[in-house]
Amino acid sequence: MAKKVNIGIIGFGNIGSAVADVIRKNHAVILANTGLDLRIKKVCDVRRVKAPFKVTSNALSIINDPGISVIVEAVGGVDPALKYIMSAIKHKKHVVTPNKEVIAKHMTEILGAARKNRVQVYFEGAVGGGIPIILPLRESLAGNQIAEIYGIVNGTTNYILSKMSKEGKEFDVVLAEAKKKGYAEPDPTSDIKGYDAAYKAAILAATAFGAHVEQKDIYCEGITKISQEDIQYADQIGYVIKLLAIARLVEGKLEVRVHPALVGKEHPLAAVSDNYNAIYVKGYPVGELMFYGQGAGGNPTASAIISDIIATANIKSKNRSAKLKKAKLRKIDDISSRYYIRLEAPDKSGVLAGISRAFASKKVSIAAVVQKEMVGNIATIVILIHKVPEKNLKAALKIVSKLPVVKKICNVIRII
Amino acid sequence: MAKKVNIGIIGFGNIGSAVADVIRKNHAVILANTGLDLRIKKVCDVRRVKAPFKVTSNALSIINDPGISVIVEAVGGVDPALKYIMSAIKHKKHVVTPNKEVIAKHMTEILGAARKNRVQVYFEGAVGGGIPIILPLRESLAGNQIAEIYGIVNGTTNYILSKMSKEGKEFDVVLAEAKKKGYAEPDPTSDIKGYDAAYKAAILAATAFGAHVEQKDIYCEGITKISQEDIQYADQIGYVIKLLAIARLVEGKLEVRVHPALVGKEHPLAAVSDNYNAIYVKGYPVGELMFYGQGAGGNPTASAIISDIIATANIKSKNRSAKLKKAKLRKIDDISSRYYIRLEAPDKSGVLAGISRAFASKKVSIAAVVQKEMVGNIATIVILIHKVPEKNLKAALKIVSKLPVVKKICNVIRII
Repeated sequence: MAKKVNIGIIGFGNIGSAVADVIRKNHAVILANTGLDLRIKKVCDVRRVKAPFKVTSNALSIINDPGISVIVEAVGGVDPALKYIMSAIKHKKHVVTPNKEVIAKHMTEILGAARKNRVQVYFEGAVGGGIPIILPLRESLAGNQIAEIYGIVNGTTNYILSKMSKEGKEFDVVLAEAKKKGYAEPDPTSDIKGYDAAYKAAILAATAFGAHVEQKDIYCEGITKISQEDIQYADQIGYVIKLLAIARLVEGKLEVRVHPALVGKEHPLAAVSDNYNAIYVKGYPVGELMFYGQGAGGNPTASAIISDIIATANIKSKNRSAKLKKAKLRKIDDISSRYYIRLEAPDKSGVLAGISRAFASKKVSIAAVVQKEMVGNIATIVILIHKVPEKNLKAALKIVSKLPVVKKICNVIRII
Repeated sequence: MAKKVNIGIIGFGNIGSAVADVIRKNHAVILANTGLDLRIKKVCDVRRVKAPFKVTSNALSIINDPGISVIVEAVGGVDPALKYIMSAIKHKKHVVTPNKEVIAKHMTEILGAARKNRVQVYFEGAVGGGIPIILPLRESLAGNQIAEIYGIVNGTTNYILSKMSKEGKEFDVVLAEAKKKGYAEPDPTSDIKGYDAAYKAAILAATAFGAHVEQKDIYCEGITKISQEDIQYADQIGYVIKLLAIARLVEGKLEVRVHPALVGKEHPLAAVSDNYNAIYVKGYPVGELMFYGQGAGGNPTASAIISDIIATANIKSKNRSAKLKKAKLRKIDDISSRYYIRLEAPDKSGVLAGISRAFASKKVSIAAVVQKEMVGNIATIVILIHKVPEKNLKAALKIVSKLPVVKKICNVIRII
């Protein structure tokens, strides 16, 4: 039996509308995964909004609606978001919000009211966009002593630093480009000064260490002083520069800070580039972990919000032991892939022509012939194949292996 | 009020004893995080075991014990592990197991029995060791249509491939070294032939797609044919070779396979080396995600097992809205860090001597002076500083900035 969950969304911009969109498109899969029938009952926005459900400009008409059990707050900022959240809690609604600023600044107050009113307030989307980090910290790592948690939690600054690093341009130039491309806001202050990352640092500290941290107590330094010279020197000595949000327990005291840092190239965070986010966790007994993904945007954030909506229904046990279905399987011959082929051939003219003809006869198309090295009079040839059904490749290789100009097919490896 | 959870452990080897050890060491933190008082009541092993709790060689005496609510099966393999698991379920015990083989081969049977007897069977530790992957897939991604999930799920083969790549040695040589160092089992067949990865592929397919997949239906190819030549050619064209477990939904059919694959160096999996594991997920709306960490070993696996034990108690809501404590904070001046310093100085003799003296006077020790470039008669000097309290560094920099031989301190960046 499906359990109906009526949802109200306050704020119908990028994120709010993505939530509605995904709930519509993934309705069947959510029902199958969780037994929940998610319904958007009403949305609120001060702008005119086209939507296939009731739209109001009065948030209270959602908060007061006795038919709605979960409110998604997607307004952003503190005012009026905090007012909406507190009012929803008092009206015994669960609240789901990706609003990092209001959670960072008012978490104690919000969670206190939630406890008192026996409702849940979840905020998976407030850190790392679609990356599951709050739930894994709270539940998967509940048996751990977390020593430190730090990460790349701001996509704009990571995009800028990555571009500076790859293209050798200065901060101001890259920032201007990022604004044009929509990777930076028209007013990027909160990102480049580190304020956005500081909100997330407070939320991570609260989640990992149960600690209430005021924004004023977080040391916060942005990336505006990072020059091309620093990036190049860092590179030469084996480091990349990243803006990190850090929460670390040292001798019983908590350090919470945001600043650029040199990260060794061997560190898993070093490979996190462009607008991606990643959060690194160290604890006992788990050792090192990293969670990587898209840290912002409507769709990834909607993933987090919907998982939180599902969590408010508390259907864990059903979900966890769902019945498996017999899968319709695709056999290995029926998959399609790109391929790497290494073969040996005597260095005669006509080798490649012969191989190409054989491949073409089975509709196998060569993407590149990348190497040709001689040992004695035997050449090693490496061929990359465009995406093709595996059975075609196998049929072609059968022909190739019998060509008089081919000595041996040494290896065939799929390319992911 | 703490809720007592009495645990029985069957199989007291590396993993079973790590679970007991961690529950003892992290007892207070688990209690604070979850309100649960975890107690090991009895352990079973056929070997003689020294332990501060009741030890038996008779698994049934644990399974029958009415005081025990959760059984950790840490025997491994199918026989007798399956018997123990089924018997525990029939005795209405929750079961937690990191046993990939028994779960991969008998998941449908085990979960069916668990449903019937209204108990939970959890197996977070069966894939990716300490990496939270089963819970995030089930809960954090419950609103997603997963398109594909693939990853590096076998530490032994990833260690071997990484070493071949870094050190230019052939497979056989590296395998022999890995055995000596304990990174490969004396009989490494299950790892190097890909069987271990195939168990995990089946579990990932079941978790992400709700699909029952038989082992015989999983295409499975190990790493024994990967030669140094392939690794080098792949490197030249921008790829690394990894053993992947893959589950992918293509036009309504599921592909489940294990084989080596060329992975582009820009792909987040490419940077996962040595014995680390990582699982990459692509879905709508979340986009791309990666979960990275230690894929084996007593401690990481114990982290997963303990989170599963906690999950059997179903205390989600309490856990999620725990009260925050006012944190004891460490101010930025009181942190210790390594530092990168870039400064400009006229190219006079005595520059470095003067700077070194200034640093030494505040107990700041230089790790390296790494660059010196001239523009006109001004030299840029980059100095790396050993770990030191920030206040000492600041005091030293105040002196340095006033030295007549120093023109300007251009930037100071912390090294993580």
